[in-house]
Amino acid sequence: MPDSGWIAVDAMGGDDGLAVMLAGVARARHRFEGMRFILVGDEAAIREELKAHPNLSQNSEIVHAPEVVGSSEKPSQAIRRAKKTSMGIAIDLVKQGRAAAAVSSGNTGALMAMAKLSLRMLPGIDRPALAARLPTLGDTDMVMLDLGANTECDARNLVQFAIMGAAYARTALDIPHPRVALLNIGSEDMKGTDEIRDAAAQLRATPSVDMQFNGFIEGDRLSRGEVDVVVCDGFSGNIALKTAEGTARFVADLLKRAFRSSVRSKLGFLISKPATELLRDHLDPNNHNGAVFLGLNGIVVKSHGGANERGVATAIGNAAKMVRNDLVRRIADDLGNVEKAA
Amino acid sequence: MPDSGWIAVDAMGGDDGLAVMLAGVARARHRFEGMRFILVGDEAAIREELKAHPNLSQNSEIVHAPEVVGSSEKPSQAIRRAKKTSMGIAIDLVKQGRAAAAVSSGNTGALMAMAKLSLRMLPGIDRPALAARLPTLGDTDMVMLDLGANTECDARNLVQFAIMGAAYARTALDIPHPRVALLNIGSEDMKGTDEIRDAAAQLRATPSVDMQFNGFIEGDRLSRGEVDVVVCDGFSGNIALKTAEGTARFVADLLKRAFRSSVRSKLGFLISKPATELLRDHLDPNNHNGAVFLGLNGIVVKSHGGANERGVATAIGNAAKMVRNDLVRRIADDLGNVEKAA
Repeated sequence: MPDSGWIAVDAMGGDDGLAVMLAGVARARHRFEGMRFILVGDEAAIREELKAHPNLSQNSEIVHAPEVVGSSEKPSQAIRRAKKTSMGIAIDLVKQGRAAAAVSSGNTGALMAMAKLSLRMLPGIDRPALAARLPTLGDTDMVMLDLGANTECDARNLVQFAIMGAAYARTALDIPHPRVALLNIGSEDMKGTDEIRDAAAQLRATPSVDMQFNGFIEGDRLSRGEVDVVVCDGFSGNIALKTAEGTARFVADLLKRAFRSSVRSKLGFLISKPATELLRDHLDPNNHNGAVFLGLNGIVVKSHGGANERGVATAIGNAAKMVRNDLVRRIADDLGNVEKAA
Repeated sequence: MPDSGWIAVDAMGGDDGLAVMLAGVARARHRFEGMRFILVGDEAAIREELKAHPNLSQNSEIVHAPEVVGSSEKPSQAIRRAKKTSMGIAIDLVKQGRAAAAVSSGNTGALMAMAKLSLRMLPGIDRPALAARLPTLGDTDMVMLDLGANTECDARNLVQFAIMGAAYARTALDIPHPRVALLNIGSEDMKGTDEIRDAAAQLRATPSVDMQFNGFIEGDRLSRGEVDVVVCDGFSGNIALKTAEGTARFVADLLKRAFRSSVRSKLGFLISKPATELLRDHLDPNNHNGAVFLGLNGIVVKSHGGANERGVATAIGNAAKMVRNDLVRRIADDLGNVEKAA
């Protein structure tokens, strides 16, 4: 049944804890009728909280976890007690085949380490990558990867990220033939590092994957909606993503300051509020929430620690789409085709 | 006389040509009384254009240059005919000691190559770096370097960039004891590449320079006004700078779209226009124009190709401040002190 499946949710992760997580799951359930959930965490607390969500109660099971991964805990420490934590157990349910995906708002480093250790990489993948959705001026989000899982990458890694990112755009964003570009400091062929130039050469020679390779893209064109998948090493990706987040907040802060600067501007603000709310909505990270570790034998989604109920629902909806469209098999097929063609 | 000096201006560079360049110089002259200018380019055209700026005529000389560097010309090509171009001659005037600084709105790569070849590096500097000013939520701009002159950097390069950036903040931004940080993908000690961690260790052990080393800064905190100098390799710096520019434009575009979405929001926009203009002014690149190549035996300032009259004036004002405060000597002194202490 392609329209059904179980998603394991780490109910304890996230800055605002259980109540927000379960409210988010309940909200997602409305949109994805066939989906059912395994809620992992403190059983008594979950049972208590579920009273507020009778509909979710009917479509979920609880798996007790006695421990929780701390938000600043080192991955190496968290891994040692993985099997007792809500995060580790949620991932393990994917490994056992009891769940098709795991979703957590907890510690990113620990989630990555546990997912890698438990689920292992797909054949042919050297390293997993963290992929997220970002808003653009276009009609759909774009995908960017890697966002910090790998500080340094070689050309082979970048090519694999491109293939995985394209598969993700096809399954989660419904873009049949995604436009893919490598993040670089210029658009000319000779720009950038050897790794990036080599990756570009290899991607030009990879016609067996359903994507269109568009060469290089610079940081100032990321949000223009000109490409669907942006590929980079985890260092540059993390810098670009965080700089974009920081700049958007910076402009919003300046705007707030400007609107507060006089009575006239306060009035103008009140009148144009519905319009500025449209803007806020477009940029709200909760509407783009749910990063995914690509390249693993299973789907593991990282929801932002500060996500609200709507954000959690977005992340879970993202996981549900990947499950339905069988992302892992698609990536494996594409990698196989590329290997065969090589 | 610390309040006077000659600045060589490549009058032909820039997207909008001679008229904008000279109008910018004339505007800067009003603010910097003692400054005089050597205008380099097509003599007849400059003479004609100067008729509109009688005051500038009295405070400038013309040096004829028969050729102009093309905006998409390869640096390797441009270098071969440097001595005939307005850009090359302006730099040469600095080398000869006839001008204290050169300013150009032309091709960045060519400017960098010509400046390096003609002026050479300061003793002890391995590579020059491109430094620019960026707006923040704080009262002053911040300095970021390198922004693309060096794709890959080792720890020694990054330490030199920090020393040069701090000297630049002291002379051009009047910050007596600048706060310096390395751009990284986390704030913990173990984050990032070996080069960045090594540079941090060296900077912690460099007390002989007038600056405060604040460790690592992430992309999302760049605009918060928490540091004065951000140091990075040219690849990450270029990605961060362009992503910040692109995101600011993206948010502005969304805001425009939102304001146009209804009659009500159009009205609100009109009322709050003085406030949104404050915002635009704060973010306008023309108010932060004038990147500088640090580490050379002389001051070479790159004005944005698309800068308007005000932007050109900002870049020239920037050059004037560096000349008055003797930036090159300050960098040389700091480097000498660090060498002595090592």
